[in-house]
Amino acid sequence: MKIKNSFFKKKKYIYINDILKKLEKKLINKNIKINDIKDLTNASNSDISFFNSLKYLETLKKSKVKYVITHSKHAKYIENYCSPILVSNVLKSIAMITIMFYPDSLNDAVDFNVVSPSKSKFKNIKFGKNVLFGKNVKIGKGAILGHNCIIESNVKIGNNCIIGSNVLIKNSIIGNNVRILDGSVIGKKGFGFFPNDEINFRYPHIGMVFIDDNVEIGCNNTIDRGSLSNTIIGKNTFIDNQVHIAHNVHIGKNCIITAQVGFAGSSTLGDNVSIGGQAGISGHLKIGNNVQIGGGSGVIKNLPDNTRVMGYPAKDIRTFLKDNK
Amino acid sequence: MKIKNSFFKKKKYIYINDILKKLEKKLINKNIKINDIKDLTNASNSDISFFNSLKYLETLKKSKVKYVITHSKHAKYIENYCSPILVSNVLKSIAMITIMFYPDSLNDAVDFNVVSPSKSKFKNIKFGKNVLFGKNVKIGKGAILGHNCIIESNVKIGNNCIIGSNVLIKNSIIGNNVRILDGSVIGKKGFGFFPNDEINFRYPHIGMVFIDDNVEIGCNNTIDRGSLSNTIIGKNTFIDNQVHIAHNVHIGKNCIITAQVGFAGSSTLGDNVSIGGQAGISGHLKIGNNVQIGGGSGVIKNLPDNTRVMGYPAKDIRTFLKDNK
Amino acid sequence: MKIKNSFFKKKKYIYINDILKKLEKKLINKNIKINDIKDLTNASNSDISFFNSLKYLETLKKSKVKYVITHSKHAKYIENYCSPILVSNVLKSIAMITIMFYPDSLNDAVDFNVVSPSKSKFKNIKFGKNVLFGKNVKIGKGAILGHNCIIESNVKIGNNCIIGSNVLIKNSIIGNNVRILDGSVIGKKGFGFFPNDEINFRYPHIGMVFIDDNVEIGCNNTIDRGSLSNTIIGKNTFIDNQVHIAHNVHIGKNCIITAQVGFAGSSTLGDNVSIGGQAGISGHLKIGNNVQIGGGSGVIKNLPDNTRVMGYPAKDIRTFLKDNK
Repeated sequence: MKIKNSFFKKKKYIYINDILKKLEKKLINKNIKINDIKDLTNASNSDISFFNSLKYLETLKKSKVKYVITHSKHAKYIENYCSPILVSNVLKSIAMITIMFYPDSLNDAVDFNVVSPSKSKFKNIKFGKNVLFGKNVKIGKGAILGHNCIIESNVKIGNNCIIGSNVLIKNSIIGNNVRILDGSVIGKKGFGFFPNDEINFRYPHIGMVFIDDNVEIGCNNTIDRGSLSNTIIGKNTFIDNQVHIAHNVHIGKNCIITAQVGFAGSSTLGDNVSIGGQAGISGHLKIGNNVQIGGGSGVIKNLPDNTRVMGYPAKDIRTFLKDNK
Repeated sequence: MKIKNSFFKKKKYIYINDILKKLEKKLINKNIKINDIKDLTNASNSDISFFNSLKYLETLKKSKVKYVITHSKHAKYIENYCSPILVSNVLKSIAMITIMFYPDSLNDAVDFNVVSPSKSKFKNIKFGKNVLFGKNVKIGKGAILGHNCIIESNVKIGNNCIIGSNVLIKNSIIGNNVRILDGSVIGKKGFGFFPNDEINFRYPHIGMVFIDDNVEIGCNNTIDRGSLSNTIIGKNTFIDNQVHIAHNVHIGKNCIITAQVGFAGSSTLGDNVSIGGQAGISGHLKIGNNVQIGGGSGVIKNLPDNTRVMGYPAKDIRTFLKDNK
Repeated sequence: MKIKNSFFKKKKYIYINDILKKLEKKLINKNIKINDIKDLTNASNSDISFFNSLKYLETLKKSKVKYVITHSKHAKYIENYCSPILVSNVLKSIAMITIMFYPDSLNDAVDFNVVSPSKSKFKNIKFGKNVLFGKNVKIGKGAILGHNCIIESNVKIGNNCIIGSNVLIKNSIIGNNVRILDGSVIGKKGFGFFPNDEINFRYPHIGMVFIDDNVEIGCNNTIDRGSLSNTIIGKNTFIDNQVHIAHNVHIGKNCIITAQVGFAGSSTLGDNVSIGGQAGISGHLKIGNNVQIGGGSGVIKNLPDNTRVMGYPAKDIRTFLKDNK
């Protein structure tokens, strides 16, 4: 699945010395331009990247990137392959540099470009009352748009989609035959920040929400967009009411997610996963294919394919039912 | 409680051969007209019905209905009393035939008939800004309607009701002195469908939501309408914020349901039931009168009258507290 | 933190005999005027107060208040220090008298004074479409107001705040640099009432919601105002999506509250508390400073400073993880 994200305008380039100044490091050559901040897999020799764990050492060795933000404890492993920039908090430094490249990524609360859409421009589409569209909204034929719904600038929506009333969509690309029901908020920035005593420092969210064909999303859901990657809902997955999906979560195809389920950030679900009501999935987990998670469960560990679990913390469902006879 | 549901237009009749063709069965007499699809208790001799469990055998014997959708394993029990139509998936066949009779039951996402209500027609009513009413809305005297709220076509609301801002109500009948607070969505179709690899097949929801007198429903709730029967909230029941009530749930009188509680489909609660915050009630359960369910509980079994439970899964509250000292 | 609440208009005075009549007590002197109903700490000699627990006996001895609503079992302890008014249900009597002083406290569902704000009056502010402001709204410079948001009468908002789309705010005072995201409902009355067979009797909510500087509140949250005191969110506290905060809850500074957490009424949190997703906090608890509560936990006991808990019911997190290996 190839997705191009164009929601946040990138600065054309930033001088390396401006980056070093921001990180309070010694300056080098004032003429070197840096193109973007990218992970090691994607960074070219004109980008800046970061190194946060030894498991990416092989990737670094193959990379052509020169400037790499890292912690001093990693310096000796990587200094033969790049010019390390040593910082005490790698994640926070990434956030600071990302904001330099994408200055709007923190200021996206409200799209003031929205207006009542031109009915002559959007043919074959049924509009409710008080619909608002931002600039450059693309929407396929046969769409139905509920009352008071807001589609912010640059959002793309496929054919035959239904957007309910009071729905707000930003920073999202949506496939064909998708239904998003009343009161849901799709694409706001995720809940990521660095705590500070006086005022927390927000992690930038330059990712988006990608929703594939035939998905259904119920009422009053909240689906946050990704930070550096995207939040993804796979084909033909059905989601009930009042579900919360945090940043960077990837949900596979044909999943069934019942009401009031919550996902913490960055977890990955396989295909054909079913989750009962009010279950919670911790962050950074890998849930395999065909997994079944009982209602009310709290999943705090990875789950291999074909697992059936229930409980808090979730365990094999037969064990759970036997333990609780 | 006698409730007439007129939200979905029924086809006047369907020829039995068109039904048989849909189910991929051999045709019979092209002139036989079928009036409706109904359960065995309510079906007359001009309807079609269904038989899904031997516990309904006595009901079938007394019924005058002729055509009955059933599984081959049940054929020998019922073939003396009707003409069975043998299918591999009874529920899915019911869904397919229901859609034939009620073709709009799947296409109800947005009511495009809504307009700003005529203030001369609706006297003794206080309207907020941007209120939208569908066709044939009936609403009693003394009503208060919040800003941006949407009352879809054919909804009936009694006297002295308060509807908060940003509330959406469809397919519902509401008694007197009812309050539905800001951001709630009442009456959308339930989360019922048959999973399919490419695109799930939606169960039709021709039921409605019935809310009795003196009920209070908090903010950002979602109450789904019934599939073939109704979702019912009994007299003087109070519901807090962010509660989810799935299709076909019946809640009794004088219940107290605290914030973030969730109900799966088709469960029944008695009167005077109190449920603490974040508790979950599984589907198809019977909860008796005067039951008390502690906050955070997960109820997965029927509960007799006067029970007090807590825990996940819920058990006697004294046992729960002793086990967790 | 000194907060003046002016959301509910108080009657100038009420004759003591009108109060006694309401409580079905013998009348005394028809000329005595009562100024307000207040707790023992705050009541002056022209107010009426209440005594519900022996732990307030010393406070009563120091108080100059004369008329004190109490239960007969407490009469002998207090009759030397005031004129007790004996009732069978003290809380309900307080509610009844509070309603006499603040007759609008139950009738606040919709503010019909809201209109489109005058852009010449509110300079340096960016307005989305269809924003509505009540009477006497105060809002600082640099504010951003999302589409369809509603700020009811007398609400005060500081500088540089962001209010998302479809947000509704009533009975609240909000500091500087606060963000309240899309679909949240702030300041409605709490879920407090006395159950009655035919129609429940609502507890009046004359408190408000106070949100301090630098707070962030996510999407689709519900934060209820206080009953006799206030609901308070401390400085720089961040709250994720779909969180419910009931009446009278006090949350400290620098707290992190993840998605779908729920608070029952009147609990107090210290500073630097972090709470994982879907956790629930029972009513009337004291949670200390620097407490960490794991996702999905159900907290039903007070927690001292620096505690780390998880589980339902919540216990020491090491014990929880060991018990569930």
